[in-house]
Amino acid sequence: MVRVIVIGSGAAGMTAASEAKRADPSAEVTVFTEDEHIAYSPCVIPWALEGKAKWEDIVMHDADFYSKNRGINVNTRTKVTEVNDSERTVTTENGDVFQYDSLIIATGSSVFIPPVEGKDLQNVFGIKTINDGKAIESALKDVKRVVIAGAGVIGLETALSLINIGKEVTVIEMMSQVIPRIADSDMAAPIQKYLEEKGVKFVMNAPLKKVNGTEKVEGVTTGDTEYPCEMVIFATGVRANLAIPKMLELDIGQLGAVITAPTMQAYKRGRLCSNIFLAGDVVQCQSAVTSGATMSQLGSSAVKQGLVAGKNAVGFKSVSGPVASPWVSAIGDLQIAGTGMSEGLASWYGLEIVSGKATGLTRARYYPGGKELTVKIIADKCSHRIIGAQILSEEEVTGRINWLTSAIIEGVTAEDFAIRSENAYCPPTNQVRDVVLSAVDDLIKKL
Amino acid sequence: MVRVIVIGSGAAGMTAASEAKRADPSAEVTVFTEDEHIAYSPCVIPWALEGKAKWEDIVMHDADFYSKNRGINVNTRTKVTEVNDSERTVTTENGDVFQYDSLIIATGSSVFIPPVEGKDLQNVFGIKTINDGKAIESALKDVKRVVIAGAGVIGLETALSLINIGKEVTVIEMMSQVIPRIADSDMAAPIQKYLEEKGVKFVMNAPLKKVNGTEKVEGVTTGDTEYPCEMVIFATGVRANLAIPKMLELDIGQLGAVITAPTMQAYKRGRLCSNIFLAGDVVQCQSAVTSGATMSQLGSSAVKQGLVAGKNAVGFKSVSGPVASPWVSAIGDLQIAGTGMSEGLASWYGLEIVSGKATGLTRARYYPGGKELTVKIIADKCSHRIIGAQILSEEEVTGRINWLTSAIIEGVTAEDFAIRSENAYCPPTNQVRDVVLSAVDDLIKKL
Repeated sequence: MVRVIVIGSGAAGMTAASEAKRADPSAEVTVFTEDEHIAYSPCVIPWALEGKAKWEDIVMHDADFYSKNRGINVNTRTKVTEVNDSERTVTTENGDVFQYDSLIIATGSSVFIPPVEGKDLQNVFGIKTINDGKAIESALKDVKRVVIAGAGVIGLETALSLINIGKEVTVIEMMSQVIPRIADSDMAAPIQKYLEEKGVKFVMNAPLKKVNGTEKVEGVTTGDTEYPCEMVIFATGVRANLAIPKMLELDIGQLGAVITAPTMQAYKRGRLCSNIFLAGDVVQCQSAVTSGATMSQLGSSAVKQGLVAGKNAVGFKSVSGPVASPWVSAIGDLQIAGTGMSEGLASWYGLEIVSGKATGLTRARYYPGGKELTVKIIADKCSHRIIGAQILSEEEVTGRINWLTSAIIEGVTAEDFAIRSENAYCPPTNQVRDVVLSAVDDLIKKL
Repeated sequence: MVRVIVIGSGAAGMTAASEAKRADPSAEVTVFTEDEHIAYSPCVIPWALEGKAKWEDIVMHDADFYSKNRGINVNTRTKVTEVNDSERTVTTENGDVFQYDSLIIATGSSVFIPPVEGKDLQNVFGIKTINDGKAIESALKDVKRVVIAGAGVIGLETALSLINIGKEVTVIEMMSQVIPRIADSDMAAPIQKYLEEKGVKFVMNAPLKKVNGTEKVEGVTTGDTEYPCEMVIFATGVRANLAIPKMLELDIGQLGAVITAPTMQAYKRGRLCSNIFLAGDVVQCQSAVTSGATMSQLGSSAVKQGLVAGKNAVGFKSVSGPVASPWVSAIGDLQIAGTGMSEGLASWYGLEIVSGKATGLTRARYYPGGKELTVKIIADKCSHRIIGAQILSEEEVTGRINWLTSAIIEGVTAEDFAIRSENAYCPPTNQVRDVVLSAVDDLIKKL
């Protein structure tokens, strides 16, 4: 009987625990988590704030369910204070010691709040956990004006949610565009425009300098300008939770997360640990575009890695591939998605790129109800390989971005994509030549 | 100056003509077509019958547009009676002779109407051209009961269209399921059920023996049963129009269509013709699943092949890859899509297969409005390669079927797909693990 201990109860941890038990029903699987709520999607919090999803619904299962239905022992509100890999033991904060054969670390990440003055004032929030969400919801009752720091997808989704419930919302962003880094400005601009039309105010090129107030938030300062508000939400990205990996002296990568093998095993001073696995926001990944590491702190990546870690923890063999990290965000009626590298990120990595772009419809032109669909595809000028893509529409975005993700991962060139790809066609579902293929046609003309 | 003559004015012909002129603006491009209407999508006819699309809208461009905007000379209602490849001339029915350097044959296909008694009675129709559609529309005024022969996607789309305008519709199908050959019965059954609920009557396992009537249709007979009706529409598939290829003695393949090289060049007695290209329903294709030929008589294939034929006709080099032929059909609220081989077709080809299946939602479970989404993936038991897939939902089907098409074309195994594929995630757009990946997980468990 294999004893598996999982630390962490997010998508990665609970997937790993379930998969370990599924792959080896005789395994004894125990989860420790500091959290009160387990197995929920933090991505839905923006919609929960406006009541489109209910707090009680977004928790898929509770500890009791895992115990009764899957034979997994989940210990909530239980902090692990010590891990000893020579003894293969985990010690919790009340001093209990548990033995493991395999350890799975899925401690996730926490919101990064920049170390500015006033960050600890009342009504300053991160937005990551259900408790964050509930605290924001409860504080919102007495709040009229909200500043959101960070124009990434979570910041923008939250901005619209708060507009929808009647708040005045200002988004403050350090960079010159919304969704910086992962989206290009030409694709992101319509999102900003849409939100402005909904009433969101944007302050761009504006690093947040200070949160003002005595006890409670009264405003924020960027540059020399003060923006009065009663609440600040930091949507400024996340950082891996490294306390447990550091305790075990696991190798940490240059991106500030744990290095893993494709098996999701940890390294310690360059040597693979046979019995320590990781999954989720705590790890860094192999990029499918460049040689080297990248971050993939996405729910979908967490689940995928959790499946691999869980299987391997009970002795099966499974690996996780290099990542292009496709993402999608729904901002009101709009959906924006991306995969691989944006133009900006590619230039950071020293790649010379060429982009193709096409706009069409999600239905045939002569069939009513089609939505505008814009596809941008980015190729490496040297190899002609497709290395990135972004899509903007009101529907039918997700399947297309996954399709292009496969092309990136398989190292397909633009020309080969045009030769070998096909698209299904029916007037009510798309155009006879899908906009994805038209974008590749445009790309090839420019290559 | 290259002189290009194109015979045929459907998606393949007009795409080839436009691409030839685009690639070489100095080329003289002339199109001959027997049709009155050019450059339209026959796929939309079922919806035009119920008024969801307008006849005048579905013709993208007329001859005048091509002449003025693209410098292409289109001769409608002009039959080509002779082609002489030694002289490189085309003769039209009024005796005019035209010289070409490159010839593109895109003569398409015609509805196959089985040679049953009564097939020439008044109110018996095929459904392929705008004129077919308009003739049906006009005859429908005096018709209460319609029999549709053939439960393929065109037959079913037409059945629902006619129900929507108040007709009594009976679909008669030779096989035991709707969408036979390209869809499996488990995936097609919900479509039949949906149509039955809308009022369509089905007579299955029933080859149509006879159309009854003296002058006009009065009914049809299958087996010993007569079904009274005032109109019969044959949606019994299409056959390539081979008159011109036969005139030129081009090599015809075992599937009853012209054999082409990847460049879309014709063969004559096993030798490549340097200056004869083909595209669209008139050709047979290389299958991406098996070694050997397959048919891909789809609008999307026609456009893709037209691009290649057009480029090559003016001296550029371009090739068309092997095909998995993804298709999608919208039947009222439902969308069904497929790619590669169905289980039935695979067994005809002697492949031993294993299938995986998963059902989920098009949104996160806790986000309102998600539609049920079922994905079935078929692998070759020997190589584990993905060779087919089918998807059923109310939305978000097309991108996913194109994604799986790429896997088939690239020869990806089920295990490699699980290792290397990723999916974007956002609660309003899909589940954290896309149903496509869950179907692959199920497939791997069974392999």
